[in-house]
Amino acid sequence: MGIITVATDFGRVDGYTAAMKGVIKSIAPKSEIIDITDELTGVAKAAFALYRYYSAFPQGTVHLVVVDPGVGSSRKALAGLVHDRFFVGPDNGVFTRVIQSNLALKSIWCEIDVSKLSFRKISPTFHGRDIFAPTAALLSGGKSLDGLGTKISNPVLINIPEPVAEPDFLRGEVIDIDKFGNLITNIPACFVLGNPKASLGEYDSIPFKKTFSDIEEGFPVAYIGSLNYLEIAVNKGRADSFFGASIGSKVGVFF
Amino acid sequence: MGIITVATDFGRVDGYTAAMKGVIKSIAPKSEIIDITDELTGVAKAAFALYRYYSAFPQGTVHLVVVDPGVGSSRKALAGLVHDRFFVGPDNGVFTRVIQSNLALKSIWCEIDVSKLSFRKISPTFHGRDIFAPTAALLSGGKSLDGLGTKISNPVLINIPEPVAEPDFLRGEVIDIDKFGNLITNIPACFVLGNPKASLGEYDSIPFKKTFSDIEEGFPVAYIGSLNYLEIAVNKGRADSFFGASIGSKVGVFF
Amino acid sequence: MGIITVATDFGRVDGYTAAMKGVIKSIAPKSEIIDITDELTGVAKAAFALYRYYSAFPQGTVHLVVVDPGVGSSRKALAGLVHDRFFVGPDNGVFTRVIQSNLALKSIWCEIDVSKLSFRKISPTFHGRDIFAPTAALLSGGKSLDGLGTKISNPVLINIPEPVAEPDFLRGEVIDIDKFGNLITNIPACFVLGNPKASLGEYDSIPFKKTFSDIEEGFPVAYIGSLNYLEIAVNKGRADSFFGASIGSKVGVFF
Repeated sequence: MGIITVATDFGRVDGYTAAMKGVIKSIAPKSEIIDITDELTGVAKAAFALYRYYSAFPQGTVHLVVVDPGVGSSRKALAGLVHDRFFVGPDNGVFTRVIQSNLALKSIWCEIDVSKLSFRKISPTFHGRDIFAPTAALLSGGKSLDGLGTKISNPVLINIPEPVAEPDFLRGEVIDIDKFGNLITNIPACFVLGNPKASLGEYDSIPFKKTFSDIEEGFPVAYIGSLNYLEIAVNKGRADSFFGASIGSKVGVFF
Repeated sequence: MGIITVATDFGRVDGYTAAMKGVIKSIAPKSEIIDITDELTGVAKAAFALYRYYSAFPQGTVHLVVVDPGVGSSRKALAGLVHDRFFVGPDNGVFTRVIQSNLALKSIWCEIDVSKLSFRKISPTFHGRDIFAPTAALLSGGKSLDGLGTKISNPVLINIPEPVAEPDFLRGEVIDIDKFGNLITNIPACFVLGNPKASLGEYDSIPFKKTFSDIEEGFPVAYIGSLNYLEIAVNKGRADSFFGASIGSKVGVFF
Repeated sequence: MGIITVATDFGRVDGYTAAMKGVIKSIAPKSEIIDITDELTGVAKAAFALYRYYSAFPQGTVHLVVVDPGVGSSRKALAGLVHDRFFVGPDNGVFTRVIQSNLALKSIWCEIDVSKLSFRKISPTFHGRDIFAPTAALLSGGKSLDGLGTKISNPVLINIPEPVAEPDFLRGEVIDIDKFGNLITNIPACFVLGNPKASLGEYDSIPFKKTFSDIEEGFPVAYIGSLNYLEIAVNKGRADSFFGASIGSKVGVFF
C-alpha cells in the first residue's frame, strides 16, 4: 500500500477534499494520504504545480489531481502511469506537463470505466469523491490500470508555449508566477549559456546570478530556478509587481 | 489504532492546530491524523462541512471539530458516538447535522469529565489542546465513552430550517454556500420529482439539469447536489453573486 | 522512524512544500509527515508558531521549519537537538524561541554539511527541497547530528524584547497577534500575581479574567494565555482592531 497525494481546487472549508480522503481511507485503509493543496486556481496552475512535485515522490505514488470545472460533462475521467507514478484526474489538461516532460518514456493513459468502481451512486457534480478518489485508492491497493478502464492515446493537453531561438537571442515568456511573485519562464536552463542578460518589459539588462541575494535588495535578478528553467525575481520583493508582469509576458535572453 | 480527523477555525499560521496534533501523537502514537481544515468560519459552517465528510470515513474514525468561541465558559465539552463514528468537540451545535441526520440510529453523547484526562493543566482558552485532542486520542486508542464522561441526552442544536410544502410548490432556503458560490438548499432530493423549475429572487424558472455543464456558460441551473439536496449554481460562474443570494435566501420548487 | 513536522511560508498552490514532502518520503519511507502550515509570514512568526507546538510532539520528532528569504546566501543551514526534539531549517532566527526557552537544557546545533547529503544537485533557490528536507529525513531515519555537519555554538537569534519590572508596575509589549486578533505579550504568567489590571494604549484598567467569556461581549479582557504569557483579547471581537495594536505596542500591568 502506497502514498496517495491529493491536490484540488475545492478550498479547505466545505469538506469536499475531506470527503475524498474519507473514501480513500475506506477503500484503501493502509494507504498514506499526503496533502498537497486545496487551493489550485485552474487547470494550468494544476499542471504546473504537479510538475513541481510529482517526481520527488517515490515510484508507485498515486497523484490525484482534481480541478474539474467540466465535471459531469463528456470530458473523460483519466488514470495514467508515467515515470513509474500513477496519475488520476479529469481529462482536461492537468497532466500536460507530466506528459510533455516524459515523451521519451512509456506512458499509459486509460479512460476510467465507472462501472468498474461500483462503490456508490455517482454524483454528477462530485467525481472527486465518487470516481477519482476510489480509482486512486484501487491503484494504491495494487489494482492494475487495465482493470479500471480502456486505454486512450490522446489525453487532452493544454497549450504551453515553446521558446523561440533567434541568432544571439532567445524569446520566451512567463508561464507561471509563484506565491512570492517570482516569474517562471519557458526558457530551459540548457539554453542559457555564457554570460547573458535577460529582458522583460522596459528592462533590457537584468543580470544573471545564482540566487536572489546575489543582487541588492529591491533589484531584479535572473537565475536558473529549481525546475531548471529561467526565472526572474526581485530580491526581497515581488517581480510580478515590479515589472507589471503576468502569465504570457515576453522575456528575452541576450548572449 | 484508528483515524483522527482534525477540523478547526484556528487558521494555519499560529500553531494552534499543530499543538493539538502534537498532543494526539504523544498520547496515541499509532493514530493517523487526517487534516480536514483550519479555516472553519463558524458553528453553522462546521456543522455543514462535517456532514459532508464524516460518513465517508471508516467506522471507528474519530472526528475532532473545534470551533469554540465560548471556550472556558460553562458550555460543555462533548464526546459522542453516532453511526459508528466518534465525535469530539464543544457542545455548541457543531454536531447538529450529524445528530439530525441520524435520528433513527442509536447515538450516545457524553459530557467530557476533565478530571479523567489528567495530562496537563488545562488552559481556560485552549481546550482544543488540553481537552478535545486528548479525548480524541484516548477514543482512538480504544478508551470507551463511558470512561471519559457522563451521558447527556440533549446536546446543543443550532436551528436548521425545514422546507415547507404547499400544493404544487415547495418553499425552502439557502443553508450553505460553498467556495465556488454554489447555493446548497434545505430541499431534499426525494421532494424533487417530475420536471420542476426552481425560483430564487427574481428568477422563477431556473431549469433542472444533472450538472453545471448541461446549461450554457453564465446561466443558472438547479440540480441535485452531492449531498442529495437541491442546489443552484451558475455554469462557470458564481451563483451567490449572480443572484445576490446569501444564507437564508428563499428558494422555491414548482411542479 | 518518527514524525517529521513541516512548516513553511511557501503557500499551498505552487507545489514547493509538496516537493519537500516527496523528498522526505523518498528518503525515509516510514517517516510520518505532519502538516503544520505553508503560511508562515516571516521569521518572527515562524519562531513564535514553532514555540507553540514543538514540545507537544513526542520526543524524537523532527521539526522542519523553512522560512528562508536568504536562501542561497551565506546564511548557514542548521540542524539541532533541543529538549529531545530535532530542528532543521535556515540559520536566521526561526529557532530563537526554542533556544531561549531551553537555556537550562543541553542543546546541540550543527551547520549542515551539504556534501554529506549527496542526493541531487542543490538548487541555490530551493534549499527546502534539496538540503532541509533530506536532512530531516536522515535524522528521522536515525542518522546522528554529528554525521550531518559541524557543531556551531551561536545560531542566529532574533531580538525578542524582555519585560521591564518597576515598583508596582510591569512594562511589556505585544510580541505576537494570532488569527483571532488576540494580543500575546512578553509578560510571563509568573509575574502576574494578586489582582492586577492591564493597560494598553488609552485603556488603563483592563480587568484580568480566566477566559474571554468572563467579560461582556465586545469588552477587553486580560488573561493568562495557553503559552503562560499575559494576553489581551476582546470577547467575540478582535483586540488588534479594538486597540489599534500591533507588534511592539506597549502593555503594562499594575498591581
